[in-house]
Amino acid sequence: MVNQTSTTDPDHGPALRALIDPDGAAGKVDLDQAVRTAYSRDFGPRHDEFVPDAVIFADNVADVQAVLSYANEHSVPVIARGAGTGVSGGVNASEGCIVLSLERMNEILEIRPDDEVAVVQPGVVNGDLGDAVAEHGLMYAPDPASYRQATIGGNIATNAGGLRCAKYGVTRDSVLGLDVVLADGTLLRTGKGTFKGVAGYDLTSLLVGSEGTLGVVVSATVRLRYLSADSRSISALFPSIEDAASGVLAIGRRRVQPAIMEFLDAGTMAVIDETFGTDLSQRGGALLLVRTDGHGAAIEEEIVRGALSELGAELSEPGDDVATRLIEMRRASRGDMQDDAYRVGEDVAVPRSRLVDYVHRLSTIAAKHDVMLRVVAHAGDGNLHPTFWVAPEDGAAGLERLGQALDASVRAALEAGGTITGEHGIGQFKLRWLPWEQQEEVLQLQRRIKDVFDPRGILNPGKGIA
Amino acid sequence: MVNQTSTTDPDHGPALRALIDPDGAAGKVDLDQAVRTAYSRDFGPRHDEFVPDAVIFADNVADVQAVLSYANEHSVPVIARGAGTGVSGGVNASEGCIVLSLERMNEILEIRPDDEVAVVQPGVVNGDLGDAVAEHGLMYAPDPASYRQATIGGNIATNAGGLRCAKYGVTRDSVLGLDVVLADGTLLRTGKGTFKGVAGYDLTSLLVGSEGTLGVVVSATVRLRYLSADSRSISALFPSIEDAASGVLAIGRRRVQPAIMEFLDAGTMAVIDETFGTDLSQRGGALLLVRTDGHGAAIEEEIVRGALSELGAELSEPGDDVATRLIEMRRASRGDMQDDAYRVGEDVAVPRSRLVDYVHRLSTIAAKHDVMLRVVAHAGDGNLHPTFWVAPEDGAAGLERLGQALDASVRAALEAGGTITGEHGIGQFKLRWLPWEQQEEVLQLQRRIKDVFDPRGILNPGKGIA
Repeated sequence: MVNQTSTTDPDHGPALRALIDPDGAAGKVDLDQAVRTAYSRDFGPRHDEFVPDAVIFADNVADVQAVLSYANEHSVPVIARGAGTGVSGGVNASEGCIVLSLERMNEILEIRPDDEVAVVQPGVVNGDLGDAVAEHGLMYAPDPASYRQATIGGNIATNAGGLRCAKYGVTRDSVLGLDVVLADGTLLRTGKGTFKGVAGYDLTSLLVGSEGTLGVVVSATVRLRYLSADSRSISALFPSIEDAASGVLAIGRRRVQPAIMEFLDAGTMAVIDETFGTDLSQRGGALLLVRTDGHGAAIEEEIVRGALSELGAELSEPGDDVATRLIEMRRASRGDMQDDAYRVGEDVAVPRSRLVDYVHRLSTIAAKHDVMLRVVAHAGDGNLHPTFWVAPEDGAAGLERLGQALDASVRAALEAGGTITGEHGIGQFKLRWLPWEQQEEVLQLQRRIKDVFDPRGILNPGKGIA
Repeated sequence: MVNQTSTTDPDHGPALRALIDPDGAAGKVDLDQAVRTAYSRDFGPRHDEFVPDAVIFADNVADVQAVLSYANEHSVPVIARGAGTGVSGGVNASEGCIVLSLERMNEILEIRPDDEVAVVQPGVVNGDLGDAVAEHGLMYAPDPASYRQATIGGNIATNAGGLRCAKYGVTRDSVLGLDVVLADGTLLRTGKGTFKGVAGYDLTSLLVGSEGTLGVVVSATVRLRYLSADSRSISALFPSIEDAASGVLAIGRRRVQPAIMEFLDAGTMAVIDETFGTDLSQRGGALLLVRTDGHGAAIEEEIVRGALSELGAELSEPGDDVATRLIEMRRASRGDMQDDAYRVGEDVAVPRSRLVDYVHRLSTIAAKHDVMLRVVAHAGDGNLHPTFWVAPEDGAAGLERLGQALDASVRAALEAGGTITGEHGIGQFKLRWLPWEQQEEVLQLQRRIKDVFDPRGILNPGKGIA
């Protein structure tokens, strides 16, 4: 359903076209209803049904500057976006907004293998950068499940995580410097082109994860890591989630840092079984998928196998590709599913030792509120993705129960010393929980920082900060 | 020489004592001339000779809040400090200031081995934290040369680096959350207690490296890393710095990430020879010290040895302790030396592939301006510490030449795509170069952020940002 408020001020589209694409030949300003609708949301839940007045496809930095200058002058809300694969409603349209797509700015500007650095435009797809640097024996470490679609710009906006974070860090840890356009059209360069650098405040880290509320990234200098020459994947089926959680701690206690350590509960195994014809859920109650890499991969594999065997896990055979395939299935088990009102994927994180307690709490919460639940976790860093859902035919009553379960799960994560969002961001959807995590003084400070960058509040209003 | 301006407003000391230590029994407020003089500077160069009106030794968070509230109300500049081992003049006294020492707040509040997290007060000495977590098989990764004296609070203020950064990151990468007191006495909690977390803006990263200009850290939650079960140290003597720089690139091209990779020029080897009675400088023109660690340490050692042998390096014997001792000597070769007007240690960083070019530039610069030079570098991350000096008997003319050489060396680093400070911070000493690196709009943005945190400008004025 399209909201009529989308046409409050119908002149912005043509005015913007006159500014950056006068003869319309480049198709930079799209006013088509279907396009505007397609660009009105991401993969997360939605609060309303606004569509943007126009979708702008920027070709270059000057386009971004011109659009922002115009929007700032006319107080038009601007929602910058990449591929729209976010799951927190971070790019959902607001009333009278325009959407600024960076997809066309998708050039890898530079790869410097000896410096282990690349410079990319924001629209470069994460996986494409990975492919391009692989031939130099390098990788771009952050690997959100959507890495084949998601753009580096979007990853930067959300400080995206992924499977490899526990060992290789999140997006912020890979971003050295940014070119960014502020709300008034000013082009800034933050950060550095070197691994280290401490001149002034860390504006780069401030911008990473700011969900398009402080500026629009038009280029990023990123650090690359070494593509491992060796990697060993182990799948470990456990009778129960308690056993699997013990496995996570046992690997940690042996001081092995896996590249990947994924936890899947029985419900998630059932989804994989259904999709791929496997029989995991008949054979165990929880699954750990562990990958070691680096020059110590084989030694670490042996240590991991020893630790998990002791706990009674059923392990994949050394050298077979079961675990590798399961990791790929795991990547596919959630990232490509669109949430809706009746099914919501969560993204809390808790200290690692609290994993098993927290999964228990989730079960209790699901039972109490009569909602369905399955859980996957990046166990290495305590980042859980519980998915709660109800049957659409339960209608309003179901939604009420779902909301209560989500609230309770978030409270429980905070009580465990955790956070309401490990890697997906606040977006629009988690704003209501932000004051549960952050004290009013912290929220205020963020609003005042926002004012410094964007005094008229045109950049992605109503997202990211309370 | 004590400046008379230090007694502009002699009432603050007694007033502060009345506030936090009414009977004086705890010795929290020290007005003694010798103490005030001792706390008037760090190990860096100095612009002036101010001493603080009082030195406050805070015992707890309430003390810090009370002192800042008072100072804010009376617009008294406050310089928070740890051990004062910084080398950029970051805690040098300014006119009419008080110094707030956090040394007494030196408790390790919590070590949670399974979560791989510790919570510490700001006055905990870096090396003490390392010792305390070692028994759990863990380490606190940032290791500035002064780690046996420097405090975690000071490390956070400067975003301290060290030898292990290329593999394990700088201070910012190890700080998950902070308790911080703002200028007006407000106590805030930023960040998270988990490895991952993306709720709101990254205030934690903004505070790390802000050199005491945004708030005073009263507690930090830090991430710990695994203490390596194995480590292999290799020393490699090369005929020339070109050969040593080729060695750095050769190790990188074999995609081995050493835990430590230090470059020492002939001048630095001569200092070690003099101090420890070795004969390094007679045997080669440059030295690389490489340490591999982790479960792949032995495999990586072999790769490193192969790569460096091919380049004609004279390697230490496998298993002997020469390289280990040299790394310890290297740690001692600069960190404990106080700079003065006639000898200044620099801290630029350049992209790794530019190391050799840059070292050449330095030699040219030193020759042109007739100053002495030696160079060490954390070669893994392109962070160089050239030391320039002139004979004190050269007087003003010498200082003039020294200043010109420093300026030229900084310009050259920027021309190579580098930064004016890799890990020491801007402090007071490097303020003059900051506008060479950062455009006016970036400097302005930082001033406005500073205004948000500290509207009256009482926190370490004249440091860190221009």
